[in-house]
Amino acid sequence: MISGDAIADLRHGNLKRLLFPRSIAIVGASKDPAKAGFNALNTLSGFDGDLFAINPRESEIAGVPCFPDLASLPIPVDLAILAVPAKACPAVVRAAADKGVGGVFIISGGFGETGEEGRALQDELAAICRETGIRLLGPNTSGFLNPRERCAASFVHRCGDFAPGRVAVVAQSGGVNLTVAFQLRALGEGVSLAVGIGNGADVDASDVLEQLLEDEETRAITLHLEGVTEGRRLMQTLRRVTAVKPVCAVVAGRADIGEFAQSHTGNMLGARQRTVAALRQSGVVVVDTLEELAQAASVLAAVRLAPCANPGVALITGQAGPGLLIVDGVKTLGLSVPALADDTAQKLAALLPPMTFVKNPVDTGRPSETFPAVVQAVARDPAVDLVLIWSLVEPAVLDPASALQDVPSPVVFGSAGMPDDIDAQRASLGALGLSFVTSPERLVLAARVLCADAMAQTKRGRAEADVTAGAPMVRIAGNLDESAAKALLAQYGIPVPQRRVCHTHAEAHAALEDVGAPVVVKIVAEGLVHKSDVGGVHLGVRSSADLDRALAAIDAIPAEGGRSYLVERMAAGGLELIIGGTNDPAWGPVLLVGAGGVNAEVLDDSALRIGPISCAEALEMIADLRIAPLIDGFRGSPRLDALAAAKVLVALGRLLSDHPEIAEAEINPFRLYPQGGVALDAVVIAQQSA
Amino acid sequence: MISGDAIADLRHGNLKRLLFPRSIAIVGASKDPAKAGFNALNTLSGFDGDLFAINPRESEIAGVPCFPDLASLPIPVDLAILAVPAKACPAVVRAAADKGVGGVFIISGGFGETGEEGRALQDELAAICRETGIRLLGPNTSGFLNPRERCAASFVHRCGDFAPGRVAVVAQSGGVNLTVAFQLRALGEGVSLAVGIGNGADVDASDVLEQLLEDEETRAITLHLEGVTEGRRLMQTLRRVTAVKPVCAVVAGRADIGEFAQSHTGNMLGARQRTVAALRQSGVVVVDTLEELAQAASVLAAVRLAPCANPGVALITGQAGPGLLIVDGVKTLGLSVPALADDTAQKLAALLPPMTFVKNPVDTGRPSETFPAVVQAVARDPAVDLVLIWSLVEPAVLDPASALQDVPSPVVFGSAGMPDDIDAQRASLGALGLSFVTSPERLVLAARVLCADAMAQTKRGRAEADVTAGAPMVRIAGNLDESAAKALLAQYGIPVPQRRVCHTHAEAHAALEDVGAPVVVKIVAEGLVHKSDVGGVHLGVRSSADLDRALAAIDAIPAEGGRSYLVERMAAGGLELIIGGTNDPAWGPVLLVGAGGVNAEVLDDSALRIGPISCAEALEMIADLRIAPLIDGFRGSPRLDALAAAKVLVALGRLLSDHPEIAEAEINPFRLYPQGGVALDAVVIAQQSA
Repeated sequence: MISGDAIADLRHGNLKRLLFPRSIAIVGASKDPAKAGFNALNTLSGFDGDLFAINPRESEIAGVPCFPDLASLPIPVDLAILAVPAKACPAVVRAAADKGVGGVFIISGGFGETGEEGRALQDELAAICRETGIRLLGPNTSGFLNPRERCAASFVHRCGDFAPGRVAVVAQSGGVNLTVAFQLRALGEGVSLAVGIGNGADVDASDVLEQLLEDEETRAITLHLEGVTEGRRLMQTLRRVTAVKPVCAVVAGRADIGEFAQSHTGNMLGARQRTVAALRQSGVVVVDTLEELAQAASVLAAVRLAPCANPGVALITGQAGPGLLIVDGVKTLGLSVPALADDTAQKLAALLPPMTFVKNPVDTGRPSETFPAVVQAVARDPAVDLVLIWSLVEPAVLDPASALQDVPSPVVFGSAGMPDDIDAQRASLGALGLSFVTSPERLVLAARVLCADAMAQTKRGRAEADVTAGAPMVRIAGNLDESAAKALLAQYGIPVPQRRVCHTHAEAHAALEDVGAPVVVKIVAEGLVHKSDVGGVHLGVRSSADLDRALAAIDAIPAEGGRSYLVERMAAGGLELIIGGTNDPAWGPVLLVGAGGVNAEVLDDSALRIGPISCAEALEMIADLRIAPLIDGFRGSPRLDALAAAKVLVALGRLLSDHPEIAEAEINPFRLYPQGGVALDAVVIAQQSA
Repeated sequence: MISGDAIADLRHGNLKRLLFPRSIAIVGASKDPAKAGFNALNTLSGFDGDLFAINPRESEIAGVPCFPDLASLPIPVDLAILAVPAKACPAVVRAAADKGVGGVFIISGGFGETGEEGRALQDELAAICRETGIRLLGPNTSGFLNPRERCAASFVHRCGDFAPGRVAVVAQSGGVNLTVAFQLRALGEGVSLAVGIGNGADVDASDVLEQLLEDEETRAITLHLEGVTEGRRLMQTLRRVTAVKPVCAVVAGRADIGEFAQSHTGNMLGARQRTVAALRQSGVVVVDTLEELAQAASVLAAVRLAPCANPGVALITGQAGPGLLIVDGVKTLGLSVPALADDTAQKLAALLPPMTFVKNPVDTGRPSETFPAVVQAVARDPAVDLVLIWSLVEPAVLDPASALQDVPSPVVFGSAGMPDDIDAQRASLGALGLSFVTSPERLVLAARVLCADAMAQTKRGRAEADVTAGAPMVRIAGNLDESAAKALLAQYGIPVPQRRVCHTHAEAHAALEDVGAPVVVKIVAEGLVHKSDVGGVHLGVRSSADLDRALAAIDAIPAEGGRSYLVERMAAGGLELIIGGTNDPAWGPVLLVGAGGVNAEVLDDSALRIGPISCAEALEMIADLRIAPLIDGFRGSPRLDALAAAKVLVALGRLLSDHPEIAEAEINPFRLYPQGGVALDAVVIAQQSA
């Protein structure tokens, strides 16, 4: 039996062999052009390494030596491509493992995507991989491309025609993998590696990202995700990768909210939002479309800003109309377009004709021979971290490649023109390592992703919130009633109202005395969640008579398991928030803050993070809310204690981390004041298995 | 003196001559390649019609006959291009008008964009145009392109290389005009006409749109706007154009909110939002970027859906990953992706392998020879108005051009592949008049713009809200106090609380009796807007003692011009809205509804329309709000009387239309109930000139 570490090393090494193969065998290779085994061989005709065909009835196919089975091969190949029916695959994969093959890619369909029987076959393959260390890409993917090795393990048309390059593609879907590779091709970018994960029976996105971390040719990574199972592992991997090279991502599933959980919080924590939050927390730049993904990676592969909390963006253009659209877009994103220093403005005034705008954006008028000096002056301004330039192709007045030599700040150049002119500009700027885009909005996108990446990098330095388990906890046995839930929150330092659970009217009257009027009187009954709806919540109870009326009303509510009365100090008015969290199977603690009451849902005003989180991250969540201005003191109203709410989020993160047996905890509302706040209602729901 | 109608006809005809010239003269033509007068001539070397140079020192330039001045020309040319200094322009334009030239385009800068002196020159040019009927494009634009006439009136590199086509460009900015033309070129689209308006001293966007309405080659129009001055004329023109051909638009100025008006309403009615509302109300499809603009026009030029309130979108794909992103995008837009009829599903099940998804989207698995039949079945489904298809380029298994012959519903085909394959697909589909796009998100965009256009067309049939003036109105002499404002609203049928303005404490006590407790007591004092802030509003006044306390508090507020007391019936609790409007110099009445209190601003939850509007439009505005679910009855709360709020919007539109002397009218809050609603506070502000 091999040790855990040793098998991990073996698996990592075998995946490297699979993705960067020096020898390949095609199992089920065929002379029949209608067969997948013919196409696979044909696509690999340019492969530089050792290529073998496996077919018991042939000795040679299209000039490739043929062997009856994997065992007969002279060497254990790095990669075996399987063009055999699904049912035959487990035996072949086992034979491959026995031979010492690095990994396999299966062309055939008929696995997890097709139902029970296929799922069983797939599980069998996964078990062989776990046991032997051989790696399996897919099944149910169009494969992977490694143009450097001239290796296209795919059945799709012209997959062998991609040029090697600096951008990697990792996609859940084989179709998306190739679509992104084609989008990169349209931008003149080559591919370092492009992998479609498919069903992910063995190799998943984290595995491939680990390989790309080590690959020196890969300068930027594009990632496409649908669902995520091992979320925390993905986050850990991505944190290590984004420290070294930029990653941008598209996450599917915007419209489909997916699971509908018991409480509001669960409902709002859609699967996609969780993934997006996790990626952002891991330093990934999330974009919306595949074209944006390819463009973002192309820009980030050429230029990466230094870590910066609020990068300053400058625009230089000779065309005010497109310039206005660009500045508009950059400002709409909330990015900083700083005024240039007086010194810079004076330099520019000397370089440009009168009546041009020299603050920022810098309107040069039609470019002249002073253009390079203008770029230099702007790039040297202390407030400028990124220079955007827009100019139509005008060779008579501007040669971008010579104008942009030795610019001391990162530059992205944008232009529009006839296709051949554009290709020529792209080539000449690319040769200088400069980034080139072909529309005003792509300049805006470049600013967005470069700044997002630079901002994410500043957060990397932060100490990660402490996730080490503390003392063994008393486990929660089931859902908690409101008072018990509040007692648990109070243990974590979350402020809750003074209260008493009373079993009789007499106890309730005593509690009114002790707690002090005004109080709120609520029903406590097992399984009753929506207390208000049944008349189980009575506010502003001041007198004994008030209390008697409230108790009588509560007594009239049907409650099979009996009822108690919660007598609670009534809180002053304030801004209401919802603060909650769930223990997600993929991500662990997921924390949410939103506008209170129905607003979080109706107005879609919530922010979420994968927990546990630091106080700084919690404050960022609160600042992300639309209602943040109300907390900051809007139109003269008092500034509220954001820190008090942030501390609740931090505490809830610890609570969910300490108590994996809790499915969800929700405070709705948390009432926030200029000083402090209080959890007015609380729900704690246990995992169904607990 | 020519009559108004005659000069309008003359101006229209002259603009047609300018944009579709059969004869052109270049004033200031030069043999010096460094001069604009050389470039202009050079760019027109392919022009089919009569070309003349004007230069007193030459008899011929580059083979073009040269005349000393416009007067000497053998014919009055359709277009004169002026490459002479700004100061010389007025005399040349007057000479051109005397000669009977159709219109002029001025290459030189130095007009309205450069300050006082330039502005005066520009005004002089505009006056000559008004007086004589000659037309002037610009100044301060890079000109226009008419590839059909082989006419590029521009100084920009390779403007003469555009192919004639079916998409027109009308852009405020010359730079944007050319950028959009280049984006169209990248999509394989030619240009019917591309016009940069520039300073718009004479020719504006409405003028060009009028020409395009008549131009049979123009199948779709792209429009770029920055600021708009003659808004209502633009709306009228666009309504006529969009009835015949689709128009899509980009509007600049997202970030810059512009003017900050006295009331909340004014603040929220940003210039861009007004323009966007006006365009949508005129049947225009508004998009966000220039690439989207070009793509939208390319799609709309090929296919336009029949008018439809809620078009059904179907997707056919063999690649589930991109398919998921496409359906995700379409659903996120709120478009309908209907389940296919059982009949269709049965047909598809017979055509496709088992385990493929045949509801909608239709996952074909890898395309096979049944693909054309699959497309036919889906296109014939009664719920389907638009068929989207996504497939990577795979010539071995799918030839889109033959698969998409005679499809009975509109189709957009999307694909990704190597550039030469893509060009070939575009050409073969284009030859069939079919729309082709190159990414999943462009398919989503196609669905968005086709459906938006189809939905806008259904609204065209609606009777326009009545804008004819009624009986002469009593003009408002200045700002109205709250009670007077409410009295005016009440004249328009807007519900206001029962109330009395009282000048003495005794009158107030009588009013408490008459109106009936509880009442609200408010200060009325000239120029005092924020009554609450100074303690001038007292709620829940029930008794004489309560009233005395309130009156004493109001008496303590400093009010130089004296004070009165407004005693008003206190309204029950309800959902609060803000309902307001302004009389905009460009657009006339602009109406707004939003979430009440600070929410409209903080949560950016408001909707606006150019008024006056119909009740149906007002209900649409309310449905556009984020808080619409609260009005519809959220989580068991009662459904509120949206119609009551809609009627207020309609009435406010009439009021502002009747009273152009009113700058702004605002009801904040309007309190909405399950039955009816009431205007709790009202402000009416007169135009400053009034």
